Amino acid sequence: MLSKSELKYYSSLLKKKFREEENKFIAEGKRLVEEGLDSNFNCELICITNQFRETNKELLEKLKSYNIRLELLTERDLQKLCDTKTPQGIVAIFQKPKRQIENTSINDSPIIVALDQIRDPGNLGTIIRTCDWFGIKTIVLSESCVEYFSPKVVRSSMGSIFHLDVIENVSLPEWLADHKKNYNLLLADLNGNDIKSHQINKRSIIIFSNEAHGPASNLETIVDEKVTIKGKGKAESLNVASAAAIIISYMSDS
Amino acid sequence: MLSKSELKYYSSLLKKKFREEENKFIAEGKRLVEEGLDSNFNCELICITNQFRETNKELLEKLKSYNIRLELLTERDLQKLCDTKTPQGIVAIFQKPKRQIENTSINDSPIIVALDQIRDPGNLGTIIRTCDWFGIKTIVLSESCVEYFSPKVVRSSMGSIFHLDVIENVSLPEWLADHKKNYNLLLADLNGNDIKSHQINKRSIIIFSNEAHGPASNLETIVDEKVTIKGKGKAESLNVASAAAIIISYMSDS
Repeated sequence: MLSKSELKYYSSLLKKKFREEENKFIAEGKRLVEEGLDSNFNCELICITNQFRETNKELLEKLKSYNIRLELLTERDLQKLCDTKTPQGIVAIFQKPKRQIENTSINDSPIIVALDQIRDPGNLGTIIRTCDWFGIKTIVLSESCVEYFSPKVVRSSMGSIFHLDVIENVSLPEWLADHKKNYNLLLADLNGNDIKSHQINKRSIIIFSNEAHGPASNLETIVDEKVTIKGKGKAESLNVASAAAIIISYMSDS
Repeated sequence: MLSKSELKYYSSLLKKKFREEENKFIAEGKRLVEEGLDSNFNCELICITNQFRETNKELLEKLKSYNIRLELLTERDLQKLCDTKTPQGIVAIFQKPKRQIENTSINDSPIIVALDQIRDPGNLGTIIRTCDWFGIKTIVLSESCVEYFSPKVVRSSMGSIFHLDVIENVSLPEWLADHKKNYNLLLADLNGNDIKSHQINKRSIIIFSNEAHGPASNLETIVDEKVTIKGKGKAESLNVASAAAIIISYMSDS
């Protein structure tokens, strides 16, 4: 059982402020919890409902084998830990990994994705999932991006959040300048060279910006090349997660 | 001014049932309304708030020039026509275009996108936007797709909804069988030939399915080829709108 104060403590993690103070976050649903448990993230607590216990006997045995605190909650109490209206009867609390820019072995990555002011959690989660699909290991987030471990990002990443190294709150201009020597810096932009004719000749950092605001002007002066996806229709732009999918797919060709 | 009963009538269009009965839908926000007015969709009514009127003098002159009924609403009344919590002070009512399968000149299209059971409105809107970017003119939706003119689809299409021909509520197996002679039928699937090695030799219909459920089994037997996006990471799948972006981008190469 969870005590009242424990329940209150864990449900506070639905708020960004507390996630940042406590360095923990919540993952909801069977799929996400399983992905988290199979990753190298530390899990502090798993909560399930009675109905979940009755209908997931096999998974339950697996959960027990992890030797992690496992608590039975009423549906009403579990709901207090959930961001969705129809939770699947299972929630887990994970610790955020301790990563520092200098500790992350980014030098092993042929492609790094850097995100500038991506504020929509669904877009961020989808980009994380795309990076994971193409085997990209590292994502760098500028200061004004949406929080990486917010419930909607975690959910829309479909578990990929547990597979990537993230470096948050980075001042992109300085960080990019530091890596210009070893990486080709590519900025996705509406005006640039056609990505389809881009020659991949060394390791690259690809930067995607907020589609509404466009790239910060100080980024344009730092990058080596601007790349674009040529279109021929009437749309003013692509969704940033769609643009990222196309460009990452091309860059993963070689 | 709108009468009480008019306001009630138009706000009923936030519900799918009434949109289908009345064949009308609502577009919220400056960008969407402008895109709609510039399209060949019929606009029945534009509603603005006083604040919008004061801060958009130039656009107001343009709106007046269209000769469409223009009404001033209080913020509170405008909110009744809105699906978002922070509307931008402008809303318009459009008539759905009357399109029938047989009337749509799909034969002009080198690429048609068919969607099977796409239920997430954000994904549908994003796919519409991607199609528009690459100049695809026609989208075909299976019976169980989310409604094309629902507020969230309209919004996430960023106006592209006004640029494409849509054929809704199609029984895909029969429809595809009818078009097999003139089109190469490609089904995006986790198991298929690498899209990057696909030879584009004739007009194609590309079918995207619900990522959670996979393609309906009766589709697999009809299509000419299954295509896939090869990955090398740990993600189980790509988001369907991301997958569509990558495949449509490749198919638009030639």
